[in-house]
Amino acid sequence: MGITQISKTKTFDGFHYQYSHQASTTNCEMRFAIFIPPQASENNKVPVLYWLSGLTCTDENFMQKAGGLKMAAELGMAIVTPDTSPRGEGVPDDDSCDGKPAYDFGLGAGFYVNATQEPWQKNYQMYDYVLTELPKLIEQYFPVTSKRAISGHSMGGHGALVLALRNPEIFTSVSAFSPICNPVNAPWGKKAFTNYLGANTQEWQQYDASILMAKATKIVPTLVHQGIYDNFLTEQLMPETLLHSAKQTNYPLQFEQVEGYDHSYYFIASFIEQHLSFHKQHLSLT
Amino acid sequence: MGITQISKTKTFDGFHYQYSHQASTTNCEMRFAIFIPPQASENNKVPVLYWLSGLTCTDENFMQKAGGLKMAAELGMAIVTPDTSPRGEGVPDDDSCDGKPAYDFGLGAGFYVNATQEPWQKNYQMYDYVLTELPKLIEQYFPVTSKRAISGHSMGGHGALVLALRNPEIFTSVSAFSPICNPVNAPWGKKAFTNYLGANTQEWQQYDASILMAKATKIVPTLVHQGIYDNFLTEQLMPETLLHSAKQTNYPLQFEQVEGYDHSYYFIASFIEQHLSFHKQHLSLT
Repeated sequence: MGITQISKTKTFDGFHYQYSHQASTTNCEMRFAIFIPPQASENNKVPVLYWLSGLTCTDENFMQKAGGLKMAAELGMAIVTPDTSPRGEGVPDDDSCDGKPAYDFGLGAGFYVNATQEPWQKNYQMYDYVLTELPKLIEQYFPVTSKRAISGHSMGGHGALVLALRNPEIFTSVSAFSPICNPVNAPWGKKAFTNYLGANTQEWQQYDASILMAKATKIVPTLVHQGIYDNFLTEQLMPETLLHSAKQTNYPLQFEQVEGYDHSYYFIASFIEQHLSFHKQHLSLT
Repeated sequence: MGITQISKTKTFDGFHYQYSHQASTTNCEMRFAIFIPPQASENNKVPVLYWLSGLTCTDENFMQKAGGLKMAAELGMAIVTPDTSPRGEGVPDDDSCDGKPAYDFGLGAGFYVNATQEPWQKNYQMYDYVLTELPKLIEQYFPVTSKRAISGHSMGGHGALVLALRNPEIFTSVSAFSPICNPVNAPWGKKAFTNYLGANTQEWQQYDASILMAKATKIVPTLVHQGIYDNFLTEQLMPETLLHSAKQTNYPLQFEQVEGYDHSYYFIASFIEQHLSFHKQHLSLT
């Protein structure tokens, strides 16, 4: 299976590309974006930071709004932004919100899980897509090494933490902005997990960063930024649960609570270079 | 007349705000955004860079996508982004494009002129709005000095150049990305000027940067970036005309033609810090 180029745009002396491909995990056409820094070549492969976006986002939000490409170009770091769900004709969506699509479940809200329930199971396999299928393509088609770091925002912060905690041998480092830290107890998480994973809440635990961190035996260096003026802080994000887990297992979680910042990309942009510097160190970039 | 806050978002230790106000020049409610850097206060007023956006844009595009706020925060520079046209109920739009709004005229396409023709005259007074009414409000309500620089993209690059060339005593410096340099000879410009200004092409000349530069007697330091892969380069932007004018009058135009870049915000983001540094110097910021 190949990949099809949708766009190619020069930026910071590197290139931003968008591609589509037929994905076997999600049984639909998927789009992703990749930033290739100027120093990357077949003779000088660069490591990759995967960025997982939040609810309603696509491959575009991070690339356009985070302000991360300047430093990625300087460091020699590729960045890959997958979509947040399967999409396209035949992919089921949630129409339960007065007949209108809900923003927090279905399209744009794959929650980085492998669905086990109908009608979601066929397409909503975002965990496998992001962990296995997409990196395989990236490493096949682009001048990158197999070194991977991962980061994300909100639902994508949840996804990044879960992927890293379950696969500590694969990711050099993980970071998150305003992650959903304890989805099994949050309204967004409960809704998504009930639909994608069914009523057995035992099944949900493999996708909850706080639960995973509380029983972690291997370490992935972890950085989290959380704004204090975030509208979703108390009801949906619950960073205190993650901090509690980190304390229990003595997990070296670097947690930065920042005064005055909210849930938006203006917050992400303010601290993205701290995150890239953090990953740089663990990806052994100079 | 007051201003009404729509949003307030912390970013880079400063704040991004959106406001609306009833404008007397454009006879409608106008929205603008302003970035106030962290060091600004009533006792430490900062200078302002006005950014004029291109066709279809609002106050949001630059603030979200240009990646300019980090350096503005470091330098202590406020940035103001007006909308690109009057808007709202009662403001006429162009429906000549198969009954659908055109992207290149009417709403989102004010071209920074004072319209003299019906039905545009009442609202489409963007030249006066940006030159006089908006700065007056900004200087009244925010901790800023009266020192002003101006910059813009495409239609906004045209606006910035025209405003600076006609008001050299007001702007310390002007810069532009992919400006429409010779609108009297470009399809976008001809369409807009015919509608806003009427058939007498003599009237158009006061809004053409190339014509204004060819007879300039006072200098405003000027920086222009133009990407070579810009789709609009030959037909709409015509930088060669501006360069020709600069040569005629020995105008110190710093023109940077850059290989591989297109018309997008990925291009702007790549060079915005060069523009902010350029303005910093002329705004006497350290």
